[in-house]
Order: sequence, then structure tokens, then C-alpha cells
Amino acid sequence: MTKPIFEKLALIGSGLIGSSIAHAARAQGVVRTIVATARSEKTRQRVKELGFADEVAADNIAAVKDADLVIVCIPVGQSGAVAQEIGPHLKAGAIVSDVGSVKGSVLRDMAPFLPKNVHFVPAHPVAGTENSGPDSGFAELFVNRWCILTPPADADAAAVERLALFWRTLGAKVESMSAEHHDLVLAITSHVPHLIAYTIVGTADELGEVTQSEVLQFSAGGFRDFTRIAASDPTMWRDVFLANREAVLEMLGRFNEDLSALTRAMRSGDGDVLFEHFTRTRAIRRGIVQIGQDSAAPDFGRTHPTLTEAKKD
Amino acid sequence: MTKPIFEKLALIGSGLIGSSIAHAARAQGVVRTIVATARSEKTRQRVKELGFADEVAADNIAAVKDADLVIVCIPVGQSGAVAQEIGPHLKAGAIVSDVGSVKGSVLRDMAPFLPKNVHFVPAHPVAGTENSGPDSGFAELFVNRWCILTPPADADAAAVERLALFWRTLGAKVESMSAEHHDLVLAITSHVPHLIAYTIVGTADELGEVTQSEVLQFSAGGFRDFTRIAASDPTMWRDVFLANREAVLEMLGRFNEDLSALTRAMRSGDGDVLFEHFTRTRAIRRGIVQIGQDSAAPDFGRTHPTLTEAKKD
Repeated sequence: MTKPIFEKLALIGSGLIGSSIAHAARAQGVVRTIVATARSEKTRQRVKELGFADEVAADNIAAVKDADLVIVCIPVGQSGAVAQEIGPHLKAGAIVSDVGSVKGSVLRDMAPFLPKNVHFVPAHPVAGTENSGPDSGFAELFVNRWCILTPPADADAAAVERLALFWRTLGAKVESMSAEHHDLVLAITSHVPHLIAYTIVGTADELGEVTQSEVLQFSAGGFRDFTRIAASDPTMWRDVFLANREAVLEMLGRFNEDLSALTRAMRSGDGDVLFEHFTRTRAIRRGIVQIGQDSAAPDFGRTHPTLTEAKKD
Repeated sequence: MTKPIFEKLALIGSGLIGSSIAHAARAQGVVRTIVATARSEKTRQRVKELGFADEVAADNIAAVKDADLVIVCIPVGQSGAVAQEIGPHLKAGAIVSDVGSVKGSVLRDMAPFLPKNVHFVPAHPVAGTENSGPDSGFAELFVNRWCILTPPADADAAAVERLALFWRTLGAKVESMSAEHHDLVLAITSHVPHLIAYTIVGTADELGEVTQSEVLQFSAGGFRDFTRIAASDPTMWRDVFLANREAVLEMLGRFNEDLSALTRAMRSGDGDVLFEHFTRTRAIRRGIVQIGQDSAAPDFGRTHPTLTEAKKD
């Protein structure tokens, strides 16, 4: 066990990320007490049953009282309203952070409502699953994943380092960059991939010539990989696209140019262009596996039933 | 063990699919002997070491001699040349099949070279991993996956059923359809998903503003899922896109329309359109999990190191 870095952690929101932080923080003994909030009575009841927080609150204002670390774990579209709500009730010297996938909008929406005597250090743990809600959290979610901090230029170095230590204790690797750069990096590594996955899954859903059941049956040809991403939380992702639209549009423009070039090669029968492109992209996969950001196991390590387990039809 | 359905199986090609068929056929005792071919001496040597075939041949003609099942397991662009080579040497009454991801072109390219006294039943097992070559094969690859047969209209029903039984014994579920319909179904469930994955991974690789190492580091935000598909065999996929270009272009047209619609919603700040779309696609994932075509485990069941295993930096 680590010596606690914070006395009281307030988690605004108890979804996948909030509940995972609670599980990991408790497992590592990195905070002394945890209060978690949820908007609906049903979710609060569930959080109590799951027991990952010492206290479950309906009221964000009550939750942040005396907290020396407040982490806002809700869709980014609500960050401003929550900052306005909790701002006047924050403890002097507290660190206020978040976990949003867009950082420019969070900085813009939250900063004006936070008092001068707290340290605002936005953060984004680049980790998740397609599930959401308090049941989906687990302590290992952040292990070996990156947590990006985007402290404002005038941020207190000691506060930034304290938050970085918190995330490292949860297993994450920590890097700092500007909010603007973060939003560009995530547009290409996360937001555009999600948008095209959401698109292709929708396209398949709408076809007349190919039935819905054929799409599902033959999904192991590649499509099923996209459906996992396209099963991500709709509210969270609606907010991400609205909050980071400039960077997403920019990266989408590049994607469309490249798609046109490959389409042209296909149409004109230029196999060399295709072969060369596909050889280059294969190498990128190897890079990701080498730095430990994915498993080397084929097919993501999906398991296969044995031949004897196979049902004969 | 099953009673052998075929005496001698000739596998033309010893890559992921050819070697997996050999492993599975042997494990199930579904054929008495297996001969596998490979073009390079190095691969033949490796196939001998791996031992999944009774005989390893350089010569396709020698391999098909006396074989009562011949399965062509090579990139679809080479199917015609191989049919021309082996056609005159096939045993009367033999079943000739393949595993190509495009069926119209295989039918067009192979049929003219096959004698009237053999049964040509093209097939496509919808299964695979991003790896290729004889080392990547394993017996369980086809378990609970679909194998699509596209027999010509005048195919012998008994021969089709015998091939279907072979695939079912390897663990696959079998369905028959026309080659034309197959190519449309696979365009949306496999080929277009591969093309857009190849595209986005290439786009990320070419950016000036976001470094290569940032793309790799922060890939857990979604991008890494695409890199697996974009690591698939370049020769195989070049041939797929050239052989199925009409259907791929048709489905790509639909994808582009849908991407434009979502982009417009994002640009104009229409969150309801995004939310509604994302809610619909989430349901499709559930359908795939329900019919057993993917795991219900979050994040494809990727494993996470424990907190104590996590390296602190």
C-alpha cells in the first residue's frame, strides 16, 4: 500500500471511468476516502451495492466539500455546468481535474467558474472499453495506458506533479501537452476512428440487398471489430464530436483524401499502390505491439472453442 | 475421430488458411493423407518442420494427382493460373474448392480450366487473423465461424454436401449462396471495413503535426483496433480489392454518403442526429455477441496486467 496522496477524493460521476478510478485508488490506498456522485437514484443505489466508494452523494456541492482532489467524470458537454455548480464550494488548495476526451472545450468551459485558490489540471486517461455505467469499472483499466495532462500555462508545478503521481499510482504513464495539441492527437488516434466505425456500422445496418442477419453472421470478416467501437457510450461520443469538431473535421479531410487515393488505385487496377500501402500499415501494428499498447496475440487474443466443443449443426 | 470423408487432400498453398485446414482436418481425422504445396523452398522446409502435412510438394501438378479433394489456398489473383496448371491433372470425380474472399472472380478465372469430370465448389471460410504464413495456422480457426459455399447452378448436390460435411467437421457452420451475393455481403462485412482501416492507419502515419510515436502511444483510444485489420496480408488484400472492385465501390459509395451525413450533423452541432445514430449502432454489437460471432467480454477480452505488475516510471 502507498501512503495516501490525497485525503478525500470526490468523483463527480460514477460511470466506467469514475468507478474504475475508485476501484484503482482504493486498491492502491492512494486516497483516504472516496465520495462518488450519480444523478439518478437508481445509479446511486447501484454504486452503494458495488461498494467502491465510501460515500455516495446526489449532491455535487456536498460531495466536493473538503475534498482535496475533485475529478469530474462525466460527458464533456456537461463540464461547464458542473464547474459552475461546484466552483464556489471547493476547498482552498484543492486540485480539480477531469477525464474528458476533449481538452480545449473543458478548459474553456470549466476554467471561468473555478476560483483562483484551486488548482485546475485537466486530464485524459486514454483507456476504456465499450461498456459504460458503474458496473463496468475495474481497477486495472489504466495499467500501462497513458494519462495526458493539459495543465494551463500558469499551473502550479507541485499540483501537476501530485496529480501525475496519483495517476502513476493507478498504473498509468503520464505525459503533459497543450490542450490544443491533445485535441489534434486524439482526433486522429481516437475520434476519427470512432466516427468511421460508427458510420460503417450504420451503413451495414441500412442496406437493402444484404440482410441484417447476414451482416451479423459474417461479421468475423472484419466488421465485428468495428462494432465494438461503435458500441461506445452514445452521450459521451456525441459530446466529443461536438466539442472537438474543428480537429475532427481537419483529420477527416485527410482521411477522405487518402480514401480517394486508394479508391482510385482500386478502380484503375493499380495493385502496386495498394500493395505498398498495405505493407506500410502492417508495420504500424508491429510498432504498437512493441511498445506494449496492444497484445501480440493474433486477433486481439480472442479465444477459440476447441474442435470438440464445437456444436455440430 | 470421424471416419475419413476424403482419402487424399491436396492443399495448394500453406499459409494461414491452408495450414489451419491441415491442422483441423488432421485433428478430426477427416482425411487420410494431406499433401501441401508451397512455392518457396524456405516455406516448404518450414512446413516440413511444422509437420501438419504428410507430404510437402513444390509441384502443384504432382500434389493434385489422385487427390479427391483439392483446396486452393492462395491469393485470389493467382487462382486462374493455378486452375490452368492443375486442370489437366485432376482425378476424375475430385472436388476442387478454394478459400478466396471473392467468389465471382474465382468462378470466372478457374472454371474455364477445370475439366467436366471434376466438381468445382468454391468456398470461403469467413475466419482469419492478421497473421499469415504456415506458422500462423491453428486447428480451431474455423470453429463457430461460417463457411460460405458458392456452387455453380449445375453443381452436383452430393459433392456440395460432401464439402459441406468436411467444413462442418472442421467446426464451421455452412451456408450456400450465389457468388454475386457473396461478393456484395463480404464487401460490406469485410472488404470496405478493411479498406477504411488501411486508409486511417495510413493517414495517421503521414501526419506532420502529430508524431508517429504519439500515434502509437495513444492508440488505445480506438486507433489500435484498426491497426490489427490494417496488418492483414498485403498480397491477399491487394487481390481482394482488385477482384471485387465493383461491389466494394458500390458499398464505399454508401459509406461515403453516411459519413457525409454524420459530418454535417457534427459541423452544424446537431447532437440529436449523432446520439440517435450511436444508439442504433450500439444495438448491432449486441446482436453479434448474441449469435456467438464475438465475445461479450469488454475490449475483446483483452487482458490487463494487475496493478502490482504495473511498471512505475
